[in-house]
Amino acid sequence: MPETGSESRPTDHSSRPFRASIPAETMRTTVSLARALVDECHLFVEPEGLRLRAMDPATVAAVDVTLEDTAFDAYEADSMHLAVDLERLGDVVGMADRGQSVRLALDPETRTLEIRVGELAYTLALVDPETVRSPPDRDSLGVEFPAALTTESGTLARAVRAADMVSDHVALGVDDEAGAFYAEADGDTDDVSLSVPETDLRDLSPAPAHSLFSVDYLDAITRAIPGELDVDLELGTEKPLAVAFEYADGGGSAEYLLSPRISRT
Amino acid sequence: MPETGSESRPTDHSSRPFRASIPAETMRTTVSLARALVDECHLFVEPEGLRLRAMDPATVAAVDVTLEDTAFDAYEADSMHLAVDLERLGDVVGMADRGQSVRLALDPETRTLEIRVGELAYTLALVDPETVRSPPDRDSLGVEFPAALTTESGTLARAVRAADMVSDHVALGVDDEAGAFYAEADGDTDDVSLSVPETDLRDLSPAPAHSLFSVDYLDAITRAIPGELDVDLELGTEKPLAVAFEYADGGGSAEYLLSPRISRT
Amino acid sequence: MPETGSESRPTDHSSRPFRASIPAETMRTTVSLARALVDECHLFVEPEGLRLRAMDPATVAAVDVTLEDTAFDAYEADSMHLAVDLERLGDVVGMADRGQSVRLALDPETRTLEIRVGELAYTLALVDPETVRSPPDRDSLGVEFPAALTTESGTLARAVRAADMVSDHVALGVDDEAGAFYAEADGDTDDVSLSVPETDLRDLSPAPAHSLFSVDYLDAITRAIPGELDVDLELGTEKPLAVAFEYADGGGSAEYLLSPRISRT
Repeated sequence: MPETGSESRPTDHSSRPFRASIPAETMRTTVSLARALVDECHLFVEPEGLRLRAMDPATVAAVDVTLEDTAFDAYEADSMHLAVDLERLGDVVGMADRGQSVRLALDPETRTLEIRVGELAYTLALVDPETVRSPPDRDSLGVEFPAALTTESGTLARAVRAADMVSDHVALGVDDEAGAFYAEADGDTDDVSLSVPETDLRDLSPAPAHSLFSVDYLDAITRAIPGELDVDLELGTEKPLAVAFEYADGGGSAEYLLSPRISRT
Repeated sequence: MPETGSESRPTDHSSRPFRASIPAETMRTTVSLARALVDECHLFVEPEGLRLRAMDPATVAAVDVTLEDTAFDAYEADSMHLAVDLERLGDVVGMADRGQSVRLALDPETRTLEIRVGELAYTLALVDPETVRSPPDRDSLGVEFPAALTTESGTLARAVRAADMVSDHVALGVDDEAGAFYAEADGDTDDVSLSVPETDLRDLSPAPAHSLFSVDYLDAITRAIPGELDVDLELGTEKPLAVAFEYADGGGSAEYLLSPRISRT
Repeated sequence: MPETGSESRPTDHSSRPFRASIPAETMRTTVSLARALVDECHLFVEPEGLRLRAMDPATVAAVDVTLEDTAFDAYEADSMHLAVDLERLGDVVGMADRGQSVRLALDPETRTLEIRVGELAYTLALVDPETVRSPPDRDSLGVEFPAALTTESGTLARAVRAADMVSDHVALGVDDEAGAFYAEADGDTDDVSLSVPETDLRDLSPAPAHSLFSVDYLDAITRAIPGELDVDLELGTEKPLAVAFEYADGGGSAEYLLSPRISRT
């Protein structure tokens, strides 16, 4: 089955419905973003790109990652709905050296994804999408977020790490009068708070917002975000949190939706 | 309680008995030096600086760390006797990036220490000093050390690591005839020794000295000493060991006192 | 027992049958190569160099490491058959800083090896060679290897790491028609393969070869190989694997022999 010979044949989408090549670093980040919440996820292969979607087993958080075809070195695909084991996919992609590309090709008959990294070929058995929990559609949730802001990913990560020292949950909110984003966690003996004034934010659409979230989920999410990026947060009162950002020079985009915990009053 | 407004008010020591700012690195080292032995320690706030003192639960070792006000970016304080949880203090200070400052302010009414690192504010509940074991005063111990020497911290650390390979305790001593500092550990099958001649020491006041110490304690102490520093050792026969050194350009100084173990003869 | 004084005495082999000095890095690698398989090994001291030989407890793999006297800074020795505890030897050698030398001297009366690293002296009790499993001689095994090739150590390591993702064993072989070295591992759901064409190999003496090996053993062996080296592999069908290479600028050489597992057909 030499790869070179197939190049000269006319494209036969029925036998090669998905074939792509992507920088290993981009693929590694993409897998990590989904693995922050789940072990298996839905994989929507579309002519214009890949989309990974998942909801965690406790149905507290959902993730939606899109890789435009521009994020790939080469990309050709029909529309398909698959599902993958993220741990094994991550391990294979983790074999690549920095600067290497990962080549992906789907064998629809065996329902396997062939992953090539240099001289290495890994045949990954795909998962039946029927067995993987489906995330709700954000639009169908009908959530409206009164407040929005843009900040550095490091700011959110620092707030979460600090909250983790004293409590299992943290309140995230917007003080619309002071014009600031804040995080607050109250522990048994110690408290921690972080307040970022509008001048230190990239952007702020202020409105009163205050909701309580799980530190563990926020920690998993902030750890998966690669390097220092601008992240868009959307917030409300007793409403979910939306965390969205682009990576891989805009070829990749991700959004997390995290349900609030019931506030202790 | 805006910080800016308080600057223009006349200093009111009754309401702000302690307020200081210090490079994070210096504070981190200070906390680590005390944490080498204990989880909680006494904190003596004085107009001319801070002092941390503690004795370990087994009453084998004591630590005494002093931070002169010159080690701080800003410092104002009344005399007070407090106590702190070192693990939590260390975690908060550990949130600071290299080059950042840690700001400390005491709220005497709530008996809390407010710790600020950038936009982060952590309210640390203080510990009742009555509940924390007090170390004996070195002078009251009446220990006299016949031998003294100055060496690199790495030399002591290497001796302790080597002894750890063969035994739970190590003899430290001075061979006054040969003019050398030595460490010796005898294991069940293997022995290890280290001899540093006077020419390789910074300083030596020779006198016969030979005492046996716990490797675990020495290991905890040598690991807490930051980088390569000159350390002053004082020794005797069947006497404690004193380990003293300065750090943070002389703004900080620390002394450990370690009781000897009974020699096996 | 000052070392300097002994230099001027005439060499007395009966009392100093082995005395040597070697760069710590070379000694560290040598110990690690043997420790990959065993905790204790035979040590053959010869006038022209040292030889470490061992067979693992399950008698699946053997290692044979030779250090020519040229690998040493100084070397003098009579012929002797000793045995050493590799973990303790490795720990002592691990105390050396990069660039330091390790000095070795045998005391035949106490059957101890004195190891000196800088100011540190470690007296290592030797092991009775009678109590250490002897490896078979390669020649006495009468194994003939039809295929041979030379590749980078990283290639073998990558194949083993990839196989480890899906299975406990991996087939290594040579496709003499295609002219390629290959590795194949079949897991319960996923498969992995690696094929290196002759053009990407340093050297290839092709012949049909295909044998199954334990991933754990290969992993231990490839992890012990220092940096990127050329390794010589010898292979057959249902035959052992020989892995040989030089290190320390040719002063050191090592060969592993690994028994095949019974193929599942």
